[in-house]
Amino acid sequence: MKLIRFGETGKEHIGVQIDGLNYDVSAFGGDYNEQFFAENGLARLEEFVKANAGKLIEIPAGSRLGAPFARPSKIVCIGLNYKDHAAETGAAIPAEPIIFMKSSTSLVGPYDQIVIPRGSEKTDWEVEFGIVIGKKASYVEESEALNYIAGYVLHNDVSERAYQLERGGTWDKGKGCDTFAPMGPYMTTADEIPDINNVRLWLKVNGKTYQDGNTSNLIFSVAHVVSYVSQFMTLLPGDVISTGTPAGVGLGFNPPIYLKAGDVIELGADYLGESRQEVVAYSQK
Amino acid sequence: MKLIRFGETGKEHIGVQIDGLNYDVSAFGGDYNEQFFAENGLARLEEFVKANAGKLIEIPAGSRLGAPFARPSKIVCIGLNYKDHAAETGAAIPAEPIIFMKSSTSLVGPYDQIVIPRGSEKTDWEVEFGIVIGKKASYVEESEALNYIAGYVLHNDVSERAYQLERGGTWDKGKGCDTFAPMGPYMTTADEIPDINNVRLWLKVNGKTYQDGNTSNLIFSVAHVVSYVSQFMTLLPGDVISTGTPAGVGLGFNPPIYLKAGDVIELGADYLGESRQEVVAYSQK
Repeated sequence: MKLIRFGETGKEHIGVQIDGLNYDVSAFGGDYNEQFFAENGLARLEEFVKANAGKLIEIPAGSRLGAPFARPSKIVCIGLNYKDHAAETGAAIPAEPIIFMKSSTSLVGPYDQIVIPRGSEKTDWEVEFGIVIGKKASYVEESEALNYIAGYVLHNDVSERAYQLERGGTWDKGKGCDTFAPMGPYMTTADEIPDINNVRLWLKVNGKTYQDGNTSNLIFSVAHVVSYVSQFMTLLPGDVISTGTPAGVGLGFNPPIYLKAGDVIELGADYLGESRQEVVAYSQK
Repeated sequence: MKLIRFGETGKEHIGVQIDGLNYDVSAFGGDYNEQFFAENGLARLEEFVKANAGKLIEIPAGSRLGAPFARPSKIVCIGLNYKDHAAETGAAIPAEPIIFMKSSTSLVGPYDQIVIPRGSEKTDWEVEFGIVIGKKASYVEESEALNYIAGYVLHNDVSERAYQLERGGTWDKGKGCDTFAPMGPYMTTADEIPDINNVRLWLKVNGKTYQDGNTSNLIFSVAHVVSYVSQFMTLLPGDVISTGTPAGVGLGFNPPIYLKAGDVIELGADYLGESRQEVVAYSQK
């Protein structure tokens, strides 16, 4: 299944995508949130969709897509998880996964605008393969880790490099600005991806390809990072772990290339669809 | 006002403390969460309490106290915000606030047990003065920052030093383990603290005083940190910012002193009450 959410920001309705068409499943009730995933929502939703086959209504034309799940309790990210990306940033290959956290207020829909923070000059892109947790996970063994995953999602882990690297302390400062986490277009359930260790992901800015990687090059695999993170904090249903970005971010160029108002980012991954964000300047609302 | 929550973990009811006695205000409805703070809940609750003066029921004897608010969207912490603490850890005085994030799954009640993570040998204490955000805050000026605060809370920012400092990447690994954020006994509304820049806070382990500080020694003031954090991420009603710990943590001793099963931590702050946690070993449940 492919889960979507549509409608106005903060008032999204739930839906599913079937054969490329988006259908409203509001009648199922609730939202794609912690409770949904915890209470076997995916299986119940699948029954609902089967029971209503042929009767589901397409979502209104021109509907905005939101992130494909409600705001999670946390968005945990893995840093420098592709060798080529570690190399381009001048960092050593990490001995164990680097963890940082992204404020959940940064979450937006797949076609929403990315707002350059006030005064920012170093806003950058990062296409990532995101994991959506399906059940509460604490001290999970790597061999069991995939059983704790509900599905996967395309994520642009937008990053402000000066805030992340030049302002002291941890990376969290440069990762959680509003609009810095476009996710979607949909969440693909785990059963639909034959090999999560062979998923191509790419990103273009203004039509030019900057990133073109594959999860086969992850330093720490999907199963490993779920197990690893669960040693340090309990993962709740609906939580997101973003697995890191391959080479080709703006920071890696000499001189670096950063986003400016008017730029258009397109990204995609096998099985996870494509998204597109226009970059705009901050304006006081 | 002093807000409390009581009852079984995950099923807490809301209450208030008046003249040292805890009263059930479940009839007010809802929880002390984002919606409560966003929708003028404090003022409405005050009216409710006045209207029911003399008729409120005390909470059942022996009730567990939970954290005094529901799980926030985020817990942001300021690192090394007291000169004496920066010195004891061997770190330089930061030029601007250090930000890290604590997984909200670490939140527990003021008298709950602290669980030493599996295999951990460096679990440490940190008494802190916590800020509870009252309304959505983005790019807030320092001169306006106090208007965005609902109240304050006592927080033991429990930290695993090996995870925080020796495992690569950011500090977030050592801050978000389950039970690592006992908060309460209550949230004191902002109007009840005459001078937030003069609040004594202390912590004892097994009856011996280790920390005895005062917010007058904060490097970056309460107003400054709210304004500062709001430049990097939007703060939501009910979010917590913990302002840092004064000197006297276990890491600062030579050799360091870390927590072990059976230890008892007591902490307190002017206006914020006192809490007590017993330390226990991890056991697979």
